[in-house]
Formats: sequence, C-alpha cells, structure tokens
Amino acid sequence: MRIATVDSACSVLNESFMPTNILSMVGIVVDHPYEQPSKVQARSEDYLLNDPDLLVKELKLCQEMLETEQVDYVHLDMSLGGVNILEITQADLLFKIPMSPRGREVIRAILPELQSIATAIDEQYHVPVLAIGKRSGPVRLAELYAAAYGVGRAMEKVKESGEAICIGLPVGTTATFNGDKVNITSLIPIESKLRAEAPVVNGVQVESFLNPIIRRFHALKLTVENIEVV
Amino acid sequence: MRIATVDSACSVLNESFMPTNILSMVGIVVDHPYEQPSKVQARSEDYLLNDPDLLVKELKLCQEMLETEQVDYVHLDMSLGGVNILEITQADLLFKIPMSPRGREVIRAILPELQSIATAIDEQYHVPVLAIGKRSGPVRLAELYAAAYGVGRAMEKVKESGEAICIGLPVGTTATFNGDKVNITSLIPIESKLRAEAPVVNGVQVESFLNPIIRRFHALKLTVENIEVV
Amino acid sequence: MRIATVDSACSVLNESFMPTNILSMVGIVVDHPYEQPSKVQARSEDYLLNDPDLLVKELKLCQEMLETEQVDYVHLDMSLGGVNILEITQADLLFKIPMSPRGREVIRAILPELQSIATAIDEQYHVPVLAIGKRSGPVRLAELYAAAYGVGRAMEKVKESGEAICIGLPVGTTATFNGDKVNITSLIPIESKLRAEAPVVNGVQVESFLNPIIRRFHALKLTVENIEVV
Repeated sequence: MRIATVDSACSVLNESFMPTNILSMVGIVVDHPYEQPSKVQARSEDYLLNDPDLLVKELKLCQEMLETEQVDYVHLDMSLGGVNILEITQADLLFKIPMSPRGREVIRAILPELQSIATAIDEQYHVPVLAIGKRSGPVRLAELYAAAYGVGRAMEKVKESGEAICIGLPVGTTATFNGDKVNITSLIPIESKLRAEAPVVNGVQVESFLNPIIRRFHALKLTVENIEVV
Repeated sequence: MRIATVDSACSVLNESFMPTNILSMVGIVVDHPYEQPSKVQARSEDYLLNDPDLLVKELKLCQEMLETEQVDYVHLDMSLGGVNILEITQADLLFKIPMSPRGREVIRAILPELQSIATAIDEQYHVPVLAIGKRSGPVRLAELYAAAYGVGRAMEKVKESGEAICIGLPVGTTATFNGDKVNITSLIPIESKLRAEAPVVNGVQVESFLNPIIRRFHALKLTVENIEVV
Repeated sequence: MRIATVDSACSVLNESFMPTNILSMVGIVVDHPYEQPSKVQARSEDYLLNDPDLLVKELKLCQEMLETEQVDYVHLDMSLGGVNILEITQADLLFKIPMSPRGREVIRAILPELQSIATAIDEQYHVPVLAIGKRSGPVRLAELYAAAYGVGRAMEKVKESGEAICIGLPVGTTATFNGDKVNITSLIPIESKLRAEAPVVNGVQVESFLNPIIRRFHALKLTVENIEVV
C-alpha cells in the first residue's frame, strides 16, 4: 500500500519553552515495510502554531506530490479515526465526533476547503484522503522528517543571525548529528527502525535537553560555535 | 495472588490492514511474580471481531479452567476499573461509567450472561470476577499467549491453503521465531520480562512490518516458503 | 529556568495490591538541563492516599523551600494544563475544565487554601505557581525522588517491625540497590537520564515484581533478611 502524507514539526520555543511557530513542513511517500520514504519533499517556511490553514497547506502539498507520485491513499494529519474526509459532514463535527471546542471550531472552518481539495484529488487520481492523524505510521515518519528539516533550518537561522534559539522536537524523538547530517529517531521502542535525516550547516553548537514544561519532549538549544583560536 | 484470565488476539488483516476476525483465545493461570503462567489453555477458533459474545466465551473458558485450578481472582478483559462484575448495575452502565455508546450497548447486552456465569463461579469456587481489562498484568500476558497461538494457527492456515495472509499482533509486541516455536514479547520497557511462546509449523515465511494504519502495532505477512531446488 | 516542585510517592500496598498510604514527600529544585536537582528536601510521614490536603502540604513545602532557594516557577502536581493557579476560578472548575467528579470536588475544596499560599508566594517572591502536574518534567523527577526516599523509609519500617511489607513504585520506574543506596530510574526511554537516589538500611531483602492489578507499575516486597548462621 503506497501512502502519501505531509506533516509539520519543529517549533521555535520562547524563553518559557512555549512553542511560537513551526519551521518545517515535509511530504513523504512510503510503501511496505513503511520504514523509509521513497520520496521526501520539504518546505521551509514559518507557520503559525495555531494557523487553522496549516492542514489545508499540508493537503495542498499532498496534492502537488500526486502530480508525479502514484499512491493508494493520502493520510491527513487530522485524527478522526481514519474516515474518508469526503464522508465527514458538518453534523458529524457538531454532534457525533468527540473533540475539544477549539478543535471543533478549527475543523469546521477549514472542512469545506479540505473537502474541495480532496474532491479534486479523488476526481483526478481516484485516491481517498483519510483523516487518520496520529494513528498513522506514515504521518509519524513525516513528522520525523519535518523535524529533521526543521533542525536544519533552525541551524541556518542561528548561523545567519548569530543569535541562539531553542527548538522543540516531536514527542518521543531525539536528534543526533553525524557530519553534515541530522538524524531524528523515535525513542518509542516499536518505532526503533523509524529515522529521518536532513542536511545541516556546520558551526552551530547543539545542546539537547528535556523540555521541563512538557514531558517526553526533547528541546535543542542552538548557539553559534565559539571558534577557539589556538 | 493466583489469577485466572483469558484473552483473545491475533487478527487476520484484509488488504487495507483492517482486522476482520480473531484467530485465538487463550486462558492462563499466573501467580507471583506474574511473569510466567503455570497453566496455558488455548482455543483455536475464528471469532468475529465485534462479536459481543466474545467476552462471554472468555469468561466461560475461565470457568472451565477453575474446574482444575485454584485461584484467588478471575480477571475479565473488560476495562471497568477492576470492579467485581456482580456489583455492576444496569444503572451504572447507563449513567455512571464513562464509555463509548457502542461499548455501552455491547456491555449492557451481555451483562446478564456475564453475571450469571460470575454468580456460578462465586457459588462454586468463591472466586470474584473483576472487570479490570487493560489495567491487568495477567490480561496482558494472556494477550501475548493468544497472539503466539494465533500466529501458530495462521501459519498452519497458510501452509494448508498455500495462500498468503497478513495478521496483526497486539499493541507494542513483536514476534521472533526459534526453530519450531514463535515467541511474542512485549516492547514496553517495563514489560521486558513478559513473553509467550507457542508451537509453529515449518515451511512458512514470515515478514514483520509496522502496520501503517495503526501506530505501535506490528503486522506479519505469512507466505508459503519457496523451496529452492538446487 | 529554575523550578521548585514537590511530589509524593511510594504507596504501601495491602494484600490485594491496592495502595493504602503514601510514605514520602520530596521537594526539589532543578535547572537546565533538568536532569539532576540542585536541592532535595525529603519529608518522611504517612499520608492518606486520598487526603485532599496532600496538595496543600506539597505547596507548603514548596513555599518553605523558597525561603532559601531562588526559582522562576513553582510546579504544582495538579494537572490543569500549566495555568497559573491564581487565574483559576470556581467557575472554571465547575464548567470549563474537564475533570472527574471526584477530582472536581477535591480541587474545589482545596482551591482557596492553594490560592492563599500561591498569593503569599507571589507577594513575597514574585514566583508564579503553575498547575502543570503530570506534564512537568520536574514533577516527574520529584516523583522519582519521593519514591527513592519512600523505599528507604519502608525498609526502615521492615527492619524495625520485622514484618514484611509491599510497596508500589511510580508508573514506569524500577528500583536498583547499590550498597547503602537505592536508585529509582525511569523506564520510559526518553527519560533514561532521570534517576533519583536515597540512603537505605541494610538487612532487608527486596524482591521486585510487576503489580498484577495495575500494568506498568513495579511493586517491591520487602522482608527481613534471614541471616544464615554458618
């Protein structure tokens, strides 16, 4: 089963370790055994943390990938049990699906646009868009890739500006550095084979620590490396 | 504390990786330190995934085991906080216990029969039946055994029919093969000592992968081994 | 960011493995990288398991620690998303915050006293008290320390009375013994660097096992060591 999906990750953290904006959105295509993507498409923009359009942008990136990639399903990072997004009605959202008030409001606002894109995907490629979210393995893998590219982007920003920044990794992940690459791996034991990598610049020092205000999340402190003159 | 319990596991997956039916039900008796059962009783039948009578069949198997096994408690795979099933009223189910509408409907339908069996167990053996479900360590161990026997049964089916099938393992578990045995182990770190084994046939090839539509679950693809003629 | 917090842990278990009372309360101060506290203050008293005043006692211990410790935040083991406790109204508790009926009742009862202490802390030290609970890394670390000191206290009790007792450790933790110290470590992979230690007496035998009625929790059986006379 060939699956296309997109996720966004890697938040800039303020001095209270609260996320402010998201650094990276990555689309992947993955097939059996669902460990390594056959395609990775990264976007490097800043996204607002609570931007209701983030999901719309993610689905648009999926749609773009379908221009060149044949898949069986699109997995959308919206956790509604895996239902086809074209089968969701406003009534479902109002009455049937348990959700936080804020989540309900956001999803109701963007549902028409999501369904319009999903209809176009259905008509052109006959591919269903599933609202599967955090239950999807490919969404998790896309999250690791988004984090890897986000770390790369954050390191570039630090190198350019000279200013330190803190970023937050996805839940249950860690970053390791190997030459000019960052590797993001899942620390959830059953996901030990999931890993993502992205290129990084040199000259930035990285310190990893547990985010004190949200358990099970690592944060990275990025600073310009002091060049010791011997 | 000696505990008898029964669980069912190992689903056949269709081409969309959705579970269709369950291959195995296993009863165990376990005592301190709750790592290895002193008795294992396996049933090899097909069970419908949403069969409301599955819990009734599980409790009947517990009842049968008590004919020869002395225990202090029966753990039923129904997650109601560990309450004695004879103390649950229809009013509790209607108003007090938080539950999905579907769960509520199923449990209300089978509660009279469960209570009738629990009454017989209480009268004959003075053993309470606790609705403890996923909180119980012994239920988890029974789940691993049910998975092991289910893998064995699936491999027999593949060998007999010559047709490949996919099966789903319980959450956070992995299968390893050692000669004519399958071992199911828990990948949850605190459960690293929990393992179950069952006999398997030869001549079936097994490939393990992460189920893409449900995170933290492994699936196995079973095919008849190609015998290379040299 | 320097954080002071207090947690209580290590329950005595009855013969059904149900917790009866809590053996230990520990306050810590921790700063970047949030792995080892710079200060540990242990209380050895018995606390009732459902004592609504436990949180009040925890906040009072935080307040005491602030007499000598400068911190940026107090983390309270009350899981309300990290809100400043002075911003919580009775109306929030009644209508806005999802909670069990029992939790709601307890928190409504103690909120005035918690807010009175938080006001004193705010006036004297300008330090906000956050109702962050289980999301806080420092609360988890305090829990490990409370468990370590609780194990030490339980071993003293066993040595004094000569009677065996069972105690329950916090979720996802394990105890190891090294000379006259107990180490409590987290088995959650991302928390592998979190550990706590406390002094213990000699002459008590410890057996670790999985609590059969609550998954992911270890229990310890403590008995007076038989001295073999050769």
